[in-house]
Amino acid sequence: MKQNLVSIRWNNDKVILLDQTKLPLETVFIEIDTIEGIWGAIKKLIVRGAPAIGIAGAFGLYLGIKNSHARDYQSFLKELQAHIAYLASSRPTAVNLFWALARMEGIIKRCEHKSIPQIKELLLLEAQTILKEDELICRKIGEHGLALLKDGMTILTHCNAGGYATARYGTALAPIYLAQEKGWGIKVFADETRPLLQGSRLTAHELMMNDVDVTLITDSMAAYVMQKGWIDAIIVGADRVAANGDTANKIGTYGLGILAKEHGIPFYIACPISTIDLKAASGDEIVIEERDASEIIQGFGKTTAPPEVKVFNPAFDVTPHRYITAFITEKGVVLPSFRDNLAKIAGRIL
Amino acid sequence: MKQNLVSIRWNNDKVILLDQTKLPLETVFIEIDTIEGIWGAIKKLIVRGAPAIGIAGAFGLYLGIKNSHARDYQSFLKELQAHIAYLASSRPTAVNLFWALARMEGIIKRCEHKSIPQIKELLLLEAQTILKEDELICRKIGEHGLALLKDGMTILTHCNAGGYATARYGTALAPIYLAQEKGWGIKVFADETRPLLQGSRLTAHELMMNDVDVTLITDSMAAYVMQKGWIDAIIVGADRVAANGDTANKIGTYGLGILAKEHGIPFYIACPISTIDLKAASGDEIVIEERDASEIIQGFGKTTAPPEVKVFNPAFDVTPHRYITAFITEKGVVLPSFRDNLAKIAGRIL
Repeated sequence: MKQNLVSIRWNNDKVILLDQTKLPLETVFIEIDTIEGIWGAIKKLIVRGAPAIGIAGAFGLYLGIKNSHARDYQSFLKELQAHIAYLASSRPTAVNLFWALARMEGIIKRCEHKSIPQIKELLLLEAQTILKEDELICRKIGEHGLALLKDGMTILTHCNAGGYATARYGTALAPIYLAQEKGWGIKVFADETRPLLQGSRLTAHELMMNDVDVTLITDSMAAYVMQKGWIDAIIVGADRVAANGDTANKIGTYGLGILAKEHGIPFYIACPISTIDLKAASGDEIVIEERDASEIIQGFGKTTAPPEVKVFNPAFDVTPHRYITAFITEKGVVLPSFRDNLAKIAGRIL
Repeated sequence: MKQNLVSIRWNNDKVILLDQTKLPLETVFIEIDTIEGIWGAIKKLIVRGAPAIGIAGAFGLYLGIKNSHARDYQSFLKELQAHIAYLASSRPTAVNLFWALARMEGIIKRCEHKSIPQIKELLLLEAQTILKEDELICRKIGEHGLALLKDGMTILTHCNAGGYATARYGTALAPIYLAQEKGWGIKVFADETRPLLQGSRLTAHELMMNDVDVTLITDSMAAYVMQKGWIDAIIVGADRVAANGDTANKIGTYGLGILAKEHGIPFYIACPISTIDLKAASGDEIVIEERDASEIIQGFGKTTAPPEVKVFNPAFDVTPHRYITAFITEKGVVLPSFRDNLAKIAGRIL
């Protein structure tokens, strides 16, 4: 994946964000050098995707304290905590944001004996580490996924589990970018992913910008391209994986799992270990968010259904583990039986 | 189905059309009393759906000759044939339009001995018969389909095989309207049907207008509602049925067939006998139309994908017969083995 197309970078004391609200029509990067700018960018979805939001929050916090005039540790800590509360209010449900901010707070708490300029430097280093680690995890997922692919294969994917949601490479798209780095000719079919069209707006865009051969289809065409024998493997991301391997991901994933099984196509879930929730015994324990009817009735600036129609709009579904061929994680590929093997890998050290 | 909501009626020497370009936002009827008006209505998709277009064409032809000043049979015939050529140019690929116009031409050809006022009357009668027959066929499909349903069931449907495409009742929706006439509480889930959204624009609208309990979902949510156990049967229409039962219908139908099988849900095709093409041995002989990329890239007045992205946009798919539980036709329900039973029913007299 081209370095100059990543969704979030740190350069010359500024955060460089790919403005995802302008996609797919314009590829615009904006430079942000204030905490308020980061808050607004998260709020307005200029940056999106859990890992990318966490990274943006960490740098935002550094931007907030970098010119602090605090003279002692306690007032510096107070200032930092106020900034954390402020940044956390940008997207209150973004778990990765809280995780990244807590990690930054952990640094300062371990540094009471250090000078304020030293602490500032360590905070910047931690934000850079969060970014670098995310890129490394995605790259590792890509490397392990690559072992499942061959030159010339065609991959179907759903939603956007790509570079635009992470520091670089993405999860489901990471093996594809690494295959391309090797010079392989991998083709991709991207489902448009109704209702929010992450497939057509984001996945198709990032693959095109990186010169990957991508063909856009509607979700309803996935079965047909499988029937034609065009698809060698399906790779999607995950929002949460239960201990038995049942996987919550973008609505439409479960249907793809069934279609994959019927056509004898391997069905892979690419996700970091942090997505595996060993506390959830099965998918039954995963609550599915239902979203507003307007996403289906007027999702495109035009009313495409009766305004008063009853709508069911689940954001995710759960694919039972029996439809999943393997999980691709940064620690390796996980095969069945998932209950044993996910527990093992989620405990193992990288 | 409410009489006052049908897509095409003949009243007071005028064709009353439900303007389908205004749906789902406005329910507007327009009165047409000229052949040019009918030509424009077909061209502009004010009337759509193969049976409805055929009916409109037949009435359009009558409107064209009703005030003819021709004094002899030959000049009257010439005038009529010029009108036929004109109407046929409105949608050159609409088979039902040609079929209806040929039927009207057949009348005049059998009436050389009759007076011109008599022929005009017979032509009007034939147009009314074409309309009435379509309504009767749909009602018969509804009655036979009803035998497969029970009070309280929930049906999933795809695209619009409803009253808006026919004289009344539709094909896939006919059993639902007849169940409602009986006072049954039937619920419907309607797939929005990307890319052209016939499900959300038309099916959801006509069911709501007829007080049927309908819930709109995206195509990618069909598997999820089946997994939840909410769907008792799937009923869809057909564009063409091969001799072995392989069925071409709106893109997305094949995927639904697989999902139905996986969930143990009966999968019915509702279609008139005229849709059964015994000359096509199997689905392999059915050519699938591919449509323009713009339907997926900017289908809603907004660009939702990179304008230059490669797109695959098949309008139909073929569901192999093994996924089909039964065909619902105006002559009865057809069960496997389809090769034998479709041949029998397509030969039998109503």
